[in-house]
Amino acid sequence: MLHFENDYNKGAHPALLEALVASNQEGLSGYGTDKYTESAIEKIRLATDCPHAQVTFLAGGTQTNQIVISSMLASYEGVIAADTGHIAVHEAGAIEFTGHKVLALPHTDGKLVASEVENYISDFYADANHAHMVHPGMVYISHPTEYGTLYSKSELEALSTVCRHHNIPLFLDGARLGYGLAARDTDLDLKTIAELTDVFYIGGTKLGALMGEALVFTKNNQPKNFVSIVKHHSALLAKGRVTGIQFDCLFTDDLYLELGRHAIAMAEQLTQILEEKGFQFYLKSPTNQQFVIVKNEELTRLTEVGIAYGFWEKYDDSHSIIRFATSWSTSQADIDALRNRL
Amino acid sequence: MLHFENDYNKGAHPALLEALVASNQEGLSGYGTDKYTESAIEKIRLATDCPHAQVTFLAGGTQTNQIVISSMLASYEGVIAADTGHIAVHEAGAIEFTGHKVLALPHTDGKLVASEVENYISDFYADANHAHMVHPGMVYISHPTEYGTLYSKSELEALSTVCRHHNIPLFLDGARLGYGLAARDTDLDLKTIAELTDVFYIGGTKLGALMGEALVFTKNNQPKNFVSIVKHHSALLAKGRVTGIQFDCLFTDDLYLELGRHAIAMAEQLTQILEEKGFQFYLKSPTNQQFVIVKNEELTRLTEVGIAYGFWEKYDDSHSIIRFATSWSTSQADIDALRNRL
Amino acid sequence: MLHFENDYNKGAHPALLEALVASNQEGLSGYGTDKYTESAIEKIRLATDCPHAQVTFLAGGTQTNQIVISSMLASYEGVIAADTGHIAVHEAGAIEFTGHKVLALPHTDGKLVASEVENYISDFYADANHAHMVHPGMVYISHPTEYGTLYSKSELEALSTVCRHHNIPLFLDGARLGYGLAARDTDLDLKTIAELTDVFYIGGTKLGALMGEALVFTKNNQPKNFVSIVKHHSALLAKGRVTGIQFDCLFTDDLYLELGRHAIAMAEQLTQILEEKGFQFYLKSPTNQQFVIVKNEELTRLTEVGIAYGFWEKYDDSHSIIRFATSWSTSQADIDALRNRL
Amino acid sequence: MLHFENDYNKGAHPALLEALVASNQEGLSGYGTDKYTESAIEKIRLATDCPHAQVTFLAGGTQTNQIVISSMLASYEGVIAADTGHIAVHEAGAIEFTGHKVLALPHTDGKLVASEVENYISDFYADANHAHMVHPGMVYISHPTEYGTLYSKSELEALSTVCRHHNIPLFLDGARLGYGLAARDTDLDLKTIAELTDVFYIGGTKLGALMGEALVFTKNNQPKNFVSIVKHHSALLAKGRVTGIQFDCLFTDDLYLELGRHAIAMAEQLTQILEEKGFQFYLKSPTNQQFVIVKNEELTRLTEVGIAYGFWEKYDDSHSIIRFATSWSTSQADIDALRNRL
Repeated sequence: MLHFENDYNKGAHPALLEALVASNQEGLSGYGTDKYTESAIEKIRLATDCPHAQVTFLAGGTQTNQIVISSMLASYEGVIAADTGHIAVHEAGAIEFTGHKVLALPHTDGKLVASEVENYISDFYADANHAHMVHPGMVYISHPTEYGTLYSKSELEALSTVCRHHNIPLFLDGARLGYGLAARDTDLDLKTIAELTDVFYIGGTKLGALMGEALVFTKNNQPKNFVSIVKHHSALLAKGRVTGIQFDCLFTDDLYLELGRHAIAMAEQLTQILEEKGFQFYLKSPTNQQFVIVKNEELTRLTEVGIAYGFWEKYDDSHSIIRFATSWSTSQADIDALRNRL
Repeated sequence: MLHFENDYNKGAHPALLEALVASNQEGLSGYGTDKYTESAIEKIRLATDCPHAQVTFLAGGTQTNQIVISSMLASYEGVIAADTGHIAVHEAGAIEFTGHKVLALPHTDGKLVASEVENYISDFYADANHAHMVHPGMVYISHPTEYGTLYSKSELEALSTVCRHHNIPLFLDGARLGYGLAARDTDLDLKTIAELTDVFYIGGTKLGALMGEALVFTKNNQPKNFVSIVKHHSALLAKGRVTGIQFDCLFTDDLYLELGRHAIAMAEQLTQILEEKGFQFYLKSPTNQQFVIVKNEELTRLTEVGIAYGFWEKYDDSHSIIRFATSWSTSQADIDALRNRL
Repeated sequence: MLHFENDYNKGAHPALLEALVASNQEGLSGYGTDKYTESAIEKIRLATDCPHAQVTFLAGGTQTNQIVISSMLASYEGVIAADTGHIAVHEAGAIEFTGHKVLALPHTDGKLVASEVENYISDFYADANHAHMVHPGMVYISHPTEYGTLYSKSELEALSTVCRHHNIPLFLDGARLGYGLAARDTDLDLKTIAELTDVFYIGGTKLGALMGEALVFTKNNQPKNFVSIVKHHSALLAKGRVTGIQFDCLFTDDLYLELGRHAIAMAEQLTQILEEKGFQFYLKSPTNQQFVIVKNEELTRLTEVGIAYGFWEKYDDSHSIIRFATSWSTSQADIDALRNRL
Repeated sequence: MLHFENDYNKGAHPALLEALVASNQEGLSGYGTDKYTESAIEKIRLATDCPHAQVTFLAGGTQTNQIVISSMLASYEGVIAADTGHIAVHEAGAIEFTGHKVLALPHTDGKLVASEVENYISDFYADANHAHMVHPGMVYISHPTEYGTLYSKSELEALSTVCRHHNIPLFLDGARLGYGLAARDTDLDLKTIAELTDVFYIGGTKLGALMGEALVFTKNNQPKNFVSIVKHHSALLAKGRVTGIQFDCLFTDDLYLELGRHAIAMAEQLTQILEEKGFQFYLKSPTNQQFVIVKNEELTRLTEVGIAYGFWEKYDDSHSIIRFATSWSTSQADIDALRNRL
């Protein structure tokens, strides 16, 4: 089977496994106080040009979203997100579970538009009854989005301006951040993201790690007693070394970006193949995911020829939207085989 | 000032106050175990033709919505509501505060449409990823709706059928129920509502009481240990007599319906006056609230001539939607004065 | 039946009912923005000598405790209380329902001892693992306590000093405050309580009102957007007039204190009668409640002679602790009849 | 440094790392649906003699406790635990965070005593006011306990009987289960534990895995839609393979028990050394942890000679309780060096 269904179907990049093996017999302190975690934090501070960044390693994206949102919002606040946002759709209510409403705005190619966010917040404060409504307390975006699209620098600046104007944090979900940073035409790098957002995370689970997300507070704004917050969310790993060692490795010699670039190179070939084969694109993405519209019969054929794809959603009664994803682990052989089988 | 801004700007119907005064020196047991509460429950069982109805008196509508929804849903379930529904907009996140998402569907005249609810639920179960989504666990409707509109019997039957098919409860918010029951052309009476829904409430706060809503579980489906649930929601009144006595009174000699009919008679005159004066209706309502679109300058004029209206929302940059409401307490003199001043 | 079982078995003081009746036809704005509520707030500011006090009227004690505690604590904090405290025992988990642990310390006559609170907090911070524990974020006391006992001024000062030293608020539950203020030998008045605590409430439900508690933030420390907080706790009364009018009345011509003094005078006679009749006191209280230990057979006899008492708890297999309470509504005739029947 | 401070200071048993490496390039489905997870589940069903056990792999102990407790309790229920229980003390309020009170009973050597649990529950139901109290809805025990002690079979049977009599689940926290199973004189094996409890977990984090706990529902009593529950607790690992592969390995050729037995053999030598050196035991444990009382000066000396110990708690002003723990990773060389240095 050729694995194009998602970007988390393999284990970890070999360098990370080797580092886990190499350090295995070292006795290290727990709960994220070990030297590898410290080293990883330093490297991320350097990479983000944010010397005082407060960095915590967590196990997964939903967990990170839940902790950030519930720890930064007041009880009466909700989080603005695109209606296609991961927190709005695919986290089984993890945000509401902690007491907060997701204030979903219509998306544009999976993205929020700054002027629409501004209007939403302005309208809220203009409403005479707003004390009876959920206050907008944060803006959540994902980059790349759930559709693989990217914010431009000017789009992110505009969102940042809106948030600062209303004194609410801008939170960027970077579950697939490396694929965004490595996109050919992006004008957003890690340092700019750190500068324009208040908190964001660098995804490892979908980019070379067994698991792990590096959560970064960039404005000395990490909630007080954050370790206790992580603990009562039941997200504090006893062996913090597991995420620390992997991120230490990912941020050595630019490995994280290199893996992103590899996936993008593979994705460009993938896109070309899909075009050659006449697939209809639902949306063209500059990153590692491509969404195409296929007849429902095609689903069976793909399985028969041994191509694993991701089912996204129903398009109409006879068509479906499906996803092809490359990743840090996609090989040239995979791509070549795909071309032959499609 | 003429009070047409809402239906809760006066105290209570005099008969209720008299009952409170008359019973004042009686020593009664607390927490809803007094004889007036018991009597009120029996009268409501009779009025709903539901001899085993489980009835609890609570202080307000948001409280009732919160308790019903959070006690009937599993942790992974959300509640389907119209996007204009009270729980979706004007309860400051009280539903999310207890951990549940409001699954908002587009409204039609403030109402949910059964076929759209059916499609939503079917699509949910058809989605391969639905374990990662919030499960639809209840349908919430208000009757009258927030726009004063009413479900017909066939519309309610259709919703009831959808809910029973999917084995989820249908919950009817009756904060203004009496105004709906008394509407001229409605084919829904209290008994039919009790039959077609799984749980609903009869609003007192907006219909003659100082405060109080009668929550009715109609299918022997009240969650176990409901007193403890009400208590930990901090909604158990020590002097349950206060709501018990009022509802006992409201359900004596059909007073509740009579108050509704009075408000409707006043509302019909109100509508006629608004028509005569050339107001543009945003929506025509068969109940005690009318929504009209006015130029923003009109807002000032209304205040100047001593007419209190309810500001609803911005219509466009130069117009607003405002509400005129009659109630159990609106007098013919109020209506006559309104005609003169408008 | 003679009602000595609790202090909330009658309706409201007649003056409050009269005020409700007198204002009944006035059109007033909702949600606590009416003139009676404003007037009540001003009178409470005066009575507490706290001109900038932030005052909110809520329906009941559990609700007030829940809102204060959940809105003032960080998510990782709990509230210190005596193990006999209302929040620790008799609120069906209302505090935990909002996510916070009650950190119960052993009581002394129903009270917390300042030095023990200090030790608890110091030990917490001295513990190397305290990030994995619930942080002490507030001290909760009741005055009078659940056993009718009272803090002295020096005891309250000592608690206040501990709280200020650790920068956490001191919260006083005054569900029965008037009975404490009116006790013969207390050296704590309303102004001193306002000064030494950070937040407290003045109970109406058990002291002359149909319902209602006046919550007072004394240090300009009311949480931001408190109306929204009250709303999403589902505790915002549409007809705020109901509590506003009653408290306006209770704080006119010292009525609140007068009712307290009346109950204390009745309680002194009650105590004398219990002594004369040879009852064994579990604890002597200076306020309106007395707890005595009786043989279980006595329970039946009391009921037979028409005396309603409050069952408190099992003492041993053959004895029970029961409560006799006077209140604002206890008459001399009640006391005389009690003497005859006991 | 000799690592005796805890049982989670090394990485994973080499066999587990090898399995992770060997499977690394396989494309596997996510969220616990991969073949290794399935194989691990089957092996655990076999080992527990519970062919229909419902097994889920989670990342850590606090997470597992939180999910089990919050998903099995009704909103008005709390969980009975020893006051030394992990959930009562060292989870930063993770249980309360989900709305539930920990009902702490005094411990006996870290354990709950069945008769005391029975009395607590009986007293609860005998209390006339129990509707205003937190209902006991589950019994939580840890085995080994936080003090390394073990329940005997008859003790566990007695607890099981109490729980079944009151129709509430018995939950066993097995964060260190393997060390209990391998203890010399225990009469509790895995099958008996599965039979006598309703739900329990087999800890991997402290017994040879990088992370991971195997949660086992033994009575076909896993809450409905459990995947969604795990997801909204943000505990669903995208790469379920990571825990699946490790547990598949731990339950191959009895490795899990073998690692436990190794640690116990090392612990017996440790105990002997501590006795020889004249240490005062706080409590003697039959498992891998020993708690001793030392003068505070000894703490410095231990560090100076390169022995890492776990600080447990203050004993008195001049003494401390400290922990020495062996684990699956303790070598004979470690023990020999300890003997020399102590």
